[in-house]
Amino acid sequence: MKNKQKLRIIPLGGMQEVGKNMTVVEYQGEMILIDCGMTFPEDDMPGIDIVIPDIQYLLQNKQKIKGIVITHGHEDHIGAVPYVLKQINVPVYGTKLTLGLLENKLKEHRLLRSTKLVTVSYRKPMKIGRFFEVEWVRVNHSIPDAAALAITTPAGVLVHTGDFKVDFTPISGDPIDLNRLAEIGDRGVLALMSESTNVLREGFSMSERKVGATFDRLFALMKNNRIIIATFASNVYRIQQIINAAERYNRKVVLSGRSMINVMGIAQNLGYLRVKKNTIIDIKDMNRYNPKQLVLITTGSQGEPMSAMTRISTGQHKRIQLMPDDVIILSAHPIPGNESAVNTVINRLLDKGVRVIYESLSEIHVSGHAYQEEHKLMINLLKPKFFIPIHGEVKHLLKHTEVAQKMGIPKKNIFMLENGNCLEITKNEAHLAKNVEAGQVLIDGLGIGDVGNIVLRDRKHLSEDGLIIAIIAMNKKTGQLVSGPDIISRGFVYVRESTDLMNEVRHVVSESLESCKKQNIKDWSSIKSQIRDDLRNFIFKKTRRNPMILPIIMDV
Amino acid sequence: MKNKQKLRIIPLGGMQEVGKNMTVVEYQGEMILIDCGMTFPEDDMPGIDIVIPDIQYLLQNKQKIKGIVITHGHEDHIGAVPYVLKQINVPVYGTKLTLGLLENKLKEHRLLRSTKLVTVSYRKPMKIGRFFEVEWVRVNHSIPDAAALAITTPAGVLVHTGDFKVDFTPISGDPIDLNRLAEIGDRGVLALMSESTNVLREGFSMSERKVGATFDRLFALMKNNRIIIATFASNVYRIQQIINAAERYNRKVVLSGRSMINVMGIAQNLGYLRVKKNTIIDIKDMNRYNPKQLVLITTGSQGEPMSAMTRISTGQHKRIQLMPDDVIILSAHPIPGNESAVNTVINRLLDKGVRVIYESLSEIHVSGHAYQEEHKLMINLLKPKFFIPIHGEVKHLLKHTEVAQKMGIPKKNIFMLENGNCLEITKNEAHLAKNVEAGQVLIDGLGIGDVGNIVLRDRKHLSEDGLIIAIIAMNKKTGQLVSGPDIISRGFVYVRESTDLMNEVRHVVSESLESCKKQNIKDWSSIKSQIRDDLRNFIFKKTRRNPMILPIIMDV
Repeated sequence: MKNKQKLRIIPLGGMQEVGKNMTVVEYQGEMILIDCGMTFPEDDMPGIDIVIPDIQYLLQNKQKIKGIVITHGHEDHIGAVPYVLKQINVPVYGTKLTLGLLENKLKEHRLLRSTKLVTVSYRKPMKIGRFFEVEWVRVNHSIPDAAALAITTPAGVLVHTGDFKVDFTPISGDPIDLNRLAEIGDRGVLALMSESTNVLREGFSMSERKVGATFDRLFALMKNNRIIIATFASNVYRIQQIINAAERYNRKVVLSGRSMINVMGIAQNLGYLRVKKNTIIDIKDMNRYNPKQLVLITTGSQGEPMSAMTRISTGQHKRIQLMPDDVIILSAHPIPGNESAVNTVINRLLDKGVRVIYESLSEIHVSGHAYQEEHKLMINLLKPKFFIPIHGEVKHLLKHTEVAQKMGIPKKNIFMLENGNCLEITKNEAHLAKNVEAGQVLIDGLGIGDVGNIVLRDRKHLSEDGLIIAIIAMNKKTGQLVSGPDIISRGFVYVRESTDLMNEVRHVVSESLESCKKQNIKDWSSIKSQIRDDLRNFIFKKTRRNPMILPIIMDV
Repeated sequence: MKNKQKLRIIPLGGMQEVGKNMTVVEYQGEMILIDCGMTFPEDDMPGIDIVIPDIQYLLQNKQKIKGIVITHGHEDHIGAVPYVLKQINVPVYGTKLTLGLLENKLKEHRLLRSTKLVTVSYRKPMKIGRFFEVEWVRVNHSIPDAAALAITTPAGVLVHTGDFKVDFTPISGDPIDLNRLAEIGDRGVLALMSESTNVLREGFSMSERKVGATFDRLFALMKNNRIIIATFASNVYRIQQIINAAERYNRKVVLSGRSMINVMGIAQNLGYLRVKKNTIIDIKDMNRYNPKQLVLITTGSQGEPMSAMTRISTGQHKRIQLMPDDVIILSAHPIPGNESAVNTVINRLLDKGVRVIYESLSEIHVSGHAYQEEHKLMINLLKPKFFIPIHGEVKHLLKHTEVAQKMGIPKKNIFMLENGNCLEITKNEAHLAKNVEAGQVLIDGLGIGDVGNIVLRDRKHLSEDGLIIAIIAMNKKTGQLVSGPDIISRGFVYVRESTDLMNEVRHVVSESLESCKKQNIKDWSSIKSQIRDDLRNFIFKKTRRNPMILPIIMDV
């Protein structure tokens, strides 16, 4: 009856991008978790620091979980591990650099001792639980040690691409292991889950090496300038190429930004960064060198508010002040949603009179994600029976579906899932079963999940029109007004100009109280709603605004 | 001594884009205003509806202002006219459609009767005041009746391009009047102010007609689908081309969105839209037709929250519900800052199962602004002595400077101004004089300028971590605590989960009061700051958050 057993696939996290942060794979009462990442908040989540997947379903099935298998070390794939491990202590499997980056994170959360980390190698499958045999297959991406996962189960083989691209001339390590993927394809693939980030782009992505050539050209041109380059801290290849150029042109390298220093330390310790002794110098020693002997590598390529590059642009960086001859290179593409922030930083830098080189001007960035032809190559090698596009917005998943159909996978075998959907697959058939609980958990400071929709709605309301507080002191027994109404406002109108308005507001509240008295309304919640309604109407008529109105009655 | 007299040029509005909304031109005690527009607020201005230029300088020089001359009818060039006219009543000059659109706006503000509107024609200069002779020169743009201004003064000729592109095959009317620009150039141009929106794009922009060909192709393909197209209400040419395609393919046209209906009404009345009788039908009659006989033209191409297309995407449009066979076309490019909003609308529509055609997939939009080669053409024809790039962010102005230098204008004759800068030009020389007052006035509902930095800062603070209110009732004379502390929070944490925390907060406030008592601190502001400090420290330690803390003491 083995072949009647179902493989269950449940994407659990990734906000708008299904299956980006976390996917559950289940077979006969055992589960493994693919990736465990976080997302950055969207525009309508003011004050939120990060977002992690809701793991209710995992908590309900705690005993079944046999391990977490990680594809690569980016935050959207490892960032939620500490939060999950605090509640579910299972071994975590990954390649060397991936676990190196994770270790650093676990240290911060004081979880390193209590966690079992298992370092895996490419082409060396790991048995996890009774049913899963997981093999990490080398892929290229914007971080070393990335992998696709080939998960062999009694129901068949599931391949999860992780994040990937095809780079035949990678900066270090080997190209994607196409031969192994071909072998796996030849043996038969039941289902393929494939990332979709760049599926809207036609053709084949460029090699990371292309950027190195541009750096070389720029370093040759900018012989007399200090060069400051912002890029992703985790893009070890990019930083390797900057270091290579620096060494070729006899420059010292300075790192700035907490995550830049962290990640580079780990990459260097684990042997992922080839750098000569004395090439990297401490930022404190920077002033010993002529500016034209320096390259600064910083965080902030996305215009993040507290990052090194943003602080440089506003003149608030403690150690790096702009000089007229500086050349700034933004070696990254703005992630959707960050366009404005990046643009503001560019304009600020230009305004300071320095030269800024950004993506549209020069080839200083290539993507770490496969383009359409690479996706076709992946599908062609693996020839899966079922296809599940993941890691993309609806528009990407739809295009990926179209691509897969053109490659001969019938529409009925392609499943565009949503988080919490449960796809049940047997050797011959696949269908959607009952959804499981899924969603987002917002993290604000130390609070996990204590900010929900109501709090966010209040924050938005407060941000749009501010608030007006009307306070009165009343004797609960007699109903007699003892003091007030006092009026306080914040974020509404500039106080100096609003004295008259506030007097009128006070008058409106007094009248509400008067009218309650006349109607013999005594219970406080009715009085409060009367005040709230009267005030809301008055304010809207007068100003066309809707501040939050908070009537407060004190019992004295 | 006439040639010693200075021409003064002062850009006054446009937020990050200098000289986009408003420029003052001054000669010997007389002034004209070029354009008078508004801007939409940026991300860090929560609750703000629109932003207009600060006109302090104009109010101080009220008597000197002889008129407002408008280049074209877009909101960023006419949107602030009502606000200015309320304080400074001068004649407004513009082409027919420009004034038609302005009239509609003045009607809403009840200013139509009190305003003198002067309709101008191309190649017919108007004398304004004693010193200015203003000629409207035809240019192409994404709205009909656009013009560059050639302003002849005793000091020389100033040309202001307005917004322009070169379109040799416009949808209606003639191409840009290059011959006239050449004549003006031959007679000698003292200074050129030129827009810079697309100066980063190389080559020559495409003709608007290109979009018509795409529509034709799409209409032929989509014979069995209802077509819904979102575009800018003011893009009369685009809408003309949709109407043309509709008539060719025997479809009825439905307009949706307040501004769409408004602008089309005006354009049709003034003869700028050629449409057969019965082509446009009322939205109420839509259901009489088979869906495949319809084209809907809506607002919302920028993902604006209340617009028709956004409401369609969320299923909240009163009259337009999506059907599975609908084809949606977003015929516009997201304005910088709107990328996320547009993307959300696209994904929502796709999620509903309809087909969505947007810019990266098809040629359904061309820009209304000149590319680099067109800018070179403009500079080449006019050969100005001084060059002032305007209407762009720093990155655009820098590139435009570079282009102008390549065209032979010496660097010292090129001026990158900021709002409030005053450029004084004589026949031989130009320099920056003392700045004038300039800035932004924020409009929120009916309030003009009553929301300033403090209010915005409070709104941002409130939106990030919410607020905690601590109220106590106290007898001012005796200093005796009568009631409280009561604690209220909004936008901080979800109340149900925070009972313990709120009890602790109450305890902290009680202790602050106790400590004040011990130290014999009696004045209320000291007590309040004690409470605020203690509470801030406690909350941050406990939650790593910084809510606004409002201690309130009532005298009872």
